[in-house]
Amino acid sequence: MTAASDTRPYSPGLEGVVGAESAIGLVDGANGRLLYRGYPIVQLVERGSYAEVADLLWTGEWHGGAVLRPEPVPEPVLAALRQLPRSASPMDALRTAVSVWGATQDLPWPPTPDQARALTAFSPSALAAFGRLRQGLEPVEPDQSLGLAAAFLQQLTDRTPDPAAARALDAYFIVGAEHGLNASTFTARVITSTRSDIASAVCGAIGALKGPLHGGAPSEVVSQLHEIGDPANAEQWVRDTVGRGERIMGFGHRVYRAYDPRAAALRTVAEGMASIADWLSVAVEVEDTVLRVLEELKPGRVIKTNVEYYAAAVLQGVGLPPELFPATFALARHAGWTAHVVEQASANKLIRPDMRYTGPLDRDVPT
Amino acid sequence: MTAASDTRPYSPGLEGVVGAESAIGLVDGANGRLLYRGYPIVQLVERGSYAEVADLLWTGEWHGGAVLRPEPVPEPVLAALRQLPRSASPMDALRTAVSVWGATQDLPWPPTPDQARALTAFSPSALAAFGRLRQGLEPVEPDQSLGLAAAFLQQLTDRTPDPAAARALDAYFIVGAEHGLNASTFTARVITSTRSDIASAVCGAIGALKGPLHGGAPSEVVSQLHEIGDPANAEQWVRDTVGRGERIMGFGHRVYRAYDPRAAALRTVAEGMASIADWLSVAVEVEDTVLRVLEELKPGRVIKTNVEYYAAAVLQGVGLPPELFPATFALARHAGWTAHVVEQASANKLIRPDMRYTGPLDRDVPT
Repeated sequence: MTAASDTRPYSPGLEGVVGAESAIGLVDGANGRLLYRGYPIVQLVERGSYAEVADLLWTGEWHGGAVLRPEPVPEPVLAALRQLPRSASPMDALRTAVSVWGATQDLPWPPTPDQARALTAFSPSALAAFGRLRQGLEPVEPDQSLGLAAAFLQQLTDRTPDPAAARALDAYFIVGAEHGLNASTFTARVITSTRSDIASAVCGAIGALKGPLHGGAPSEVVSQLHEIGDPANAEQWVRDTVGRGERIMGFGHRVYRAYDPRAAALRTVAEGMASIADWLSVAVEVEDTVLRVLEELKPGRVIKTNVEYYAAAVLQGVGLPPELFPATFALARHAGWTAHVVEQASANKLIRPDMRYTGPLDRDVPT
Repeated sequence: MTAASDTRPYSPGLEGVVGAESAIGLVDGANGRLLYRGYPIVQLVERGSYAEVADLLWTGEWHGGAVLRPEPVPEPVLAALRQLPRSASPMDALRTAVSVWGATQDLPWPPTPDQARALTAFSPSALAAFGRLRQGLEPVEPDQSLGLAAAFLQQLTDRTPDPAAARALDAYFIVGAEHGLNASTFTARVITSTRSDIASAVCGAIGALKGPLHGGAPSEVVSQLHEIGDPANAEQWVRDTVGRGERIMGFGHRVYRAYDPRAAALRTVAEGMASIADWLSVAVEVEDTVLRVLEELKPGRVIKTNVEYYAAAVLQGVGLPPELFPATFALARHAGWTAHVVEQASANKLIRPDMRYTGPLDRDVPT
């Protein structure tokens, strides 16, 4: 069918087209509500661990006490990471690690919660290994008595993390675990729909999450807070930034019209962290100022704090360098990606929209 | 929005939804027509080279004499490939190679024909290197006086290929280069739509092509021809296979109702290959028998030879082991994938369909 004869409606970006049904996560922007398998995100953060939440996402049911231990990095993955330039993007390193991991595993169809568990338990160790290699340090083995987030910090720093920091990062992993059919999750489902394997699906998802239109920008929030410096400067800085028509990072969200429930959950956890108290108090004061000034400058527009803002507080607070923020988000999202892979496989149909051809017709190749 | 209140129409697999406009390829199944940028596939195979066709796909215009030289494999990629198990899937190896390549390159937004050219010229060398490593052989450097398909054979075998074999593989690369918005090309566009990089997009596409619902099955055609053995057995074999309700590989296509134009183009080229004459004559005789018996057993159903059938003839004819067929298809498709990446970036909008939530609501996490 050609452009002239193709009068079907065109849905750029597939906006508004229902392309999947899913029982995993409900993103209810109008009401500031995020549910995983029916459980509200605030309760999951307050009462659960990432291991329990990941298990919930994979199995559909709450199993209190579920654990998820860090996996050591297989030698072929370590070898590949050692050869990457230290300047390589950590997202590229993580994508590569998952690709090598997949090449070394037997991953029969269909993908299962066990495959999801194995991949989710592997990736933090791989990213931590690259996090050390890029600083010229040797990777360290995971302490398998720790949970996944704690072991990620332990493998980055080669010391047992402060429990408050481990708890805060675990909370960050929970709020980042799942968010409906975003572009990276959709990528994972499209790849799975060909009956490909879970590592291929997560490689693709990491690649999609790398794009700045998707991955969010907690590291930009950190830069912004550094730029503001003292809370006393916040008001003038907001007025100047809005006056220049620039965007303030960490505020406003495409979906959430009310307060982003993930921000609320993370703020609560962040407030419990003694070790980042100074930095956090700046964040809280700046937040209050930004919301007040935005309300004054753009009355009637609901612009609330989003998850990036307190994600930045937590990630910086636990000592992560900003260059690792996007890949750390990818670690958290492993649970959701792989849950969607398992769900897609369970009632599979190839995902393949149509295309309208708009190019020339009937040209001849010169002889 | 929840299942109960969500009454929007659902399009499983996005079937029938126009999700992209593209001026790259026209797949006109009803008329057995495949155009790249307006040029029919048969002319492109007869009069063009893969280098010229890839350039056409990237730039939109025919530049006679365009060349594409093989790139050597960078050391970090080679190191990663050396560490893979020899039993690793060649598709996993290629996905890994592209991921490492991306981690070592500067690939600024937007993706360009130059980035597309560099990646397309790299991947055959990487797959050939793994093709040797998996046999316990050392990789060899590309002969940069050769074209891409010829150099792929040269790097696999460590000798200059027979010109007829090189020509036949080049023709295979041309017919495999592009085929509209299939699942792997769609994956590449979704990843690009987040403003991610071309290597991330092609990693995802390779992962999607790996799935048996997408990648086609020329290696199964080879097994089938081996199973049939002598053309004299073909008739009984077809009757038995159809009688058991099994599918005959290499015949019938989701899109092409008439003869697959790629099969016609490849048969012409394959017939010109002296070195595979015996094997090809079996393929031709079996084809004739299959079509005659299918017409008799399923009258009125148009079941014609598809591209996989003669792809198998060419790939086996030039001496490729069947385990490398899917990844060799991925090499050919690089031109189309990267052309779609460049086109997507040129008028970008995030690709993200909606989802209908079908899970439970309002459960409480036990305290």
